[in-house]
Amino acid sequence: MKTTNIAALLTDFGALDPYVGIVKGVIKSLSPRASLIDLAHEILPQDVRSAAFHLMVSVPYFPDGTLFVAVVDPGVGSSRAVLYAETARHRYLAPDNGLLSWVFRKQPPRVLRSVENDALFLSPVSRTFQGRDVFAPVAGHLLGGMKSKRLGPPYQMKTRIPFPEPVRSKNKIQGEVLVVDRFGNLISNIGEREMRGRRLRVRVGRSKMLPLCPSYSEGPDKAPFVVRGSFGFLEVAVKNGNAAERLKACVGDELSAEVSS
Amino acid sequence: MKTTNIAALLTDFGALDPYVGIVKGVIKSLSPRASLIDLAHEILPQDVRSAAFHLMVSVPYFPDGTLFVAVVDPGVGSSRAVLYAETARHRYLAPDNGLLSWVFRKQPPRVLRSVENDALFLSPVSRTFQGRDVFAPVAGHLLGGMKSKRLGPPYQMKTRIPFPEPVRSKNKIQGEVLVVDRFGNLISNIGEREMRGRRLRVRVGRSKMLPLCPSYSEGPDKAPFVVRGSFGFLEVAVKNGNAAERLKACVGDELSAEVSS
Amino acid sequence: MKTTNIAALLTDFGALDPYVGIVKGVIKSLSPRASLIDLAHEILPQDVRSAAFHLMVSVPYFPDGTLFVAVVDPGVGSSRAVLYAETARHRYLAPDNGLLSWVFRKQPPRVLRSVENDALFLSPVSRTFQGRDVFAPVAGHLLGGMKSKRLGPPYQMKTRIPFPEPVRSKNKIQGEVLVVDRFGNLISNIGEREMRGRRLRVRVGRSKMLPLCPSYSEGPDKAPFVVRGSFGFLEVAVKNGNAAERLKACVGDELSAEVSS
Repeated sequence: MKTTNIAALLTDFGALDPYVGIVKGVIKSLSPRASLIDLAHEILPQDVRSAAFHLMVSVPYFPDGTLFVAVVDPGVGSSRAVLYAETARHRYLAPDNGLLSWVFRKQPPRVLRSVENDALFLSPVSRTFQGRDVFAPVAGHLLGGMKSKRLGPPYQMKTRIPFPEPVRSKNKIQGEVLVVDRFGNLISNIGEREMRGRRLRVRVGRSKMLPLCPSYSEGPDKAPFVVRGSFGFLEVAVKNGNAAERLKACVGDELSAEVSS
Repeated sequence: MKTTNIAALLTDFGALDPYVGIVKGVIKSLSPRASLIDLAHEILPQDVRSAAFHLMVSVPYFPDGTLFVAVVDPGVGSSRAVLYAETARHRYLAPDNGLLSWVFRKQPPRVLRSVENDALFLSPVSRTFQGRDVFAPVAGHLLGGMKSKRLGPPYQMKTRIPFPEPVRSKNKIQGEVLVVDRFGNLISNIGEREMRGRRLRVRVGRSKMLPLCPSYSEGPDKAPFVVRGSFGFLEVAVKNGNAAERLKACVGDELSAEVSS
Repeated sequence: MKTTNIAALLTDFGALDPYVGIVKGVIKSLSPRASLIDLAHEILPQDVRSAAFHLMVSVPYFPDGTLFVAVVDPGVGSSRAVLYAETARHRYLAPDNGLLSWVFRKQPPRVLRSVENDALFLSPVSRTFQGRDVFAPVAGHLLGGMKSKRLGPPYQMKTRIPFPEPVRSKNKIQGEVLVVDRFGNLISNIGEREMRGRRLRVRVGRSKMLPLCPSYSEGPDKAPFVVRGSFGFLEVAVKNGNAAERLKACVGDELSAEVSS
C-alpha cells in the first residue's frame, strides 16, 4: 500500500504529563522525518469506546498511507495483543481491545498482524507504559520504511465493541447519545440520512420534541434543537450554548427521532 | 507576497475532540509539506473577541508569509462570508465576523477576497463543521501554492469589532480588563507607553491603588501590582499567585491608571 | 556534539493563551526547518520542581542533539541567568533556577554557558515574557546552526533543587509522593530496583499495606496497589480508577516500602 511519513496519534495520556511528548521523542529517534499529528489526547482515561468513535469519524480525512497510533489501553501489561492493521487507505497500531472496531465498519482490514517482534521494542519493555516501549518504536520503524511483515504473524482480531445500532420502526428510530463534544453538542448514533421527511423531530430522554434546524446559527435562541451533524449523525445543540447542560444529558441517554412525511 | 508552508491555527475547537486533528488531516492531504503550528484552541466557545485579541498579539512574531487560519465561527452554516486577507507580511482565512478587526489596526489589509470557489471545498459541505469542509481544504490549496485569485472575488469586510479604546484625560486613563490569562494576570486595554511618569498607579474596580513594578519577581509578596506587559498593555499581576482570583476580577471590569509626574 | 533540528518545549504557559504558539512563531522565523515537539505546557504555574521531574524522565527518549527549551521561570525579568548546557547527548536552554538539577543527576553537563549576547534577543526584551524574547530567538539561532560559543561566557550553575532522596534502612525505605499524574497514579521517589525481595509492600501516609502487582490490569478490583513504574520508581495505582482520589493523597505525602525476603 501507499505509505507516508505521517502518523496521527490518539491516546488518553492527557496534556498534564510528558507522556505524549515522550512517545514523539521515541518516534523521532527512529524516524527523524516523521510528521506527527495529534488527533486527541484528552480522551477520558481508559475510555476505549470514545476512542473508537474519534477514530471512526477522523480517519476519512487523513492522507492515504497515514499511520494511526491509538493507545487507549486499560490492558497494558496483560496478554492482550498489539494489532497492526491495513485498510484500503490507512495503517493502524492499536491494542486488541475493540478500539478499531468502528473504523472497520466502513473500511474492513485487508491485513491484520500481531505485533510480536520484540527486537523492535525498547528494552526493557515496561508493564505500564507500552505507548513508549512498544507502540512508539514500532511506529518509528514503520514510518522509517520497515516492511510490516517484520512485525509479527497474521492474526485474527479477538475483541470487538459492537456499534450501538439504533432500533428502527416505520417513522421512528430509537437511539442514544454516543458522544458529548466540548461545545455540549449531543452526537447520536442515528444516521442523518436515514431520517428524511417533511418534519423531523427528536427527543432526548423525556424532553419536549425538538425541531430540526439547518445550522447552529439558524436555531432558536436558547432552546435546544436538532441538526444534521458533520459526522453523518443527528446532533442536539443549543445556539451559543451547551445542550448537554441545558438538557442535563450525557453519554448513553436515550435519543429518539420521528418523521412525519 | 512572500509565502511559506507555515500555517498557524486558531480555533475554539478544544482538545477534547478530534476536530483540530481532522482539520490538520485535511490540510496535510492537500499539502503534505505544510508545517502546522497551534496558536490556541481553548478559546471559549464562540468567543470571537478573545480570538481577535490572541491574533492581534501573536501575528507579529510569525514568519513572513504565514497563513493564519482562524475559526471561531458562531455563524457557521449561515450566509456570513469566509474571508481571505493579505497584509504586508501575512495571510489570513477567517469568517467575516470581526475576528480580524484588531489585527488590522496596525496591519491594514492590502487584499480582501470572499472565498466562494466551492470547487476547492470538501463535498458535501456540512452546515456545522466548515473548519473541516471549507477552511482546511482552502488552506491546503494555498499552502500547496495555489494563487489566491482563484478563491473568489474582491470583497469589503462587513463585520468589525471596535477595539475598546480607553478614555483619556490629563493624568488619568480609564480602561478595562481585556483578557485574563492562565496565570490570572489581568491584561488591560491601556497602552503601556501612554502612561509614562514618576509614579504610575492602577486601580481595578474599587481596589486600592496598585503600584508599578518592573517585573513579576520584583513585585511585593502576595499583594497585586502593575507591570508593563509584554504585549504593550498594562497588566495587573500577583507574584507566584493569581490576580484575577485575588481581586475577584474578570474580563470587562474597569481598570484605571493615574500618573503623578 | 551532534545536533538536530529538533527542539522539545517544556513550559508552564498552558493551552488557554497563545504563548506557546508565539514562541514557536519566533523559532520558526529564525529556523524555518525546525521540528518542534511539545513536551508539556500544563505544568502548574511556576512549579519548577514538577518541570525538573518531567525533564528528567523524558530526556532519555529524545534523539541525540535535541535542544530542550524549558521555561518555567518565576524569576523572569530578575537577574537570574539564562543557562545553555550540553550533556553527552542533548542541549538545554533554561533559567538558572534548578530546573535542570534532576536531569543532570545521570547526565552531568559538559558545557555550561550564561546566555548574555543580547544581539540574539528580540528587541526590546520584555521583563515578563522572555520565553518569547530570549529563549525562543536563541533556540531559533541554535537550531539554525549557530555555534553555542556565541551565546555567552562559561558559567557555573547557581541554583540546584536537591532530589528528595528516600531514607533507607535494612528492609524498609521511607520516601514520598513525587508526582501525581493525570491517571491519579502516585509516582514515588523510591527507585524500583532498590526494593527486590519476596514480598514488597507499600504504604501511603497511614494507609493499609498495599500489595505489589506486575501491571495495572493484574491489580485487584477497586483497591490500590503498587507497580514498578515505567520511569524506574515505585508507583501506587488503582485499576481503571484514581489512586490519588482513593487515598486522598497528594505530592509530598509520605510513602514507605517494606520488603520481607
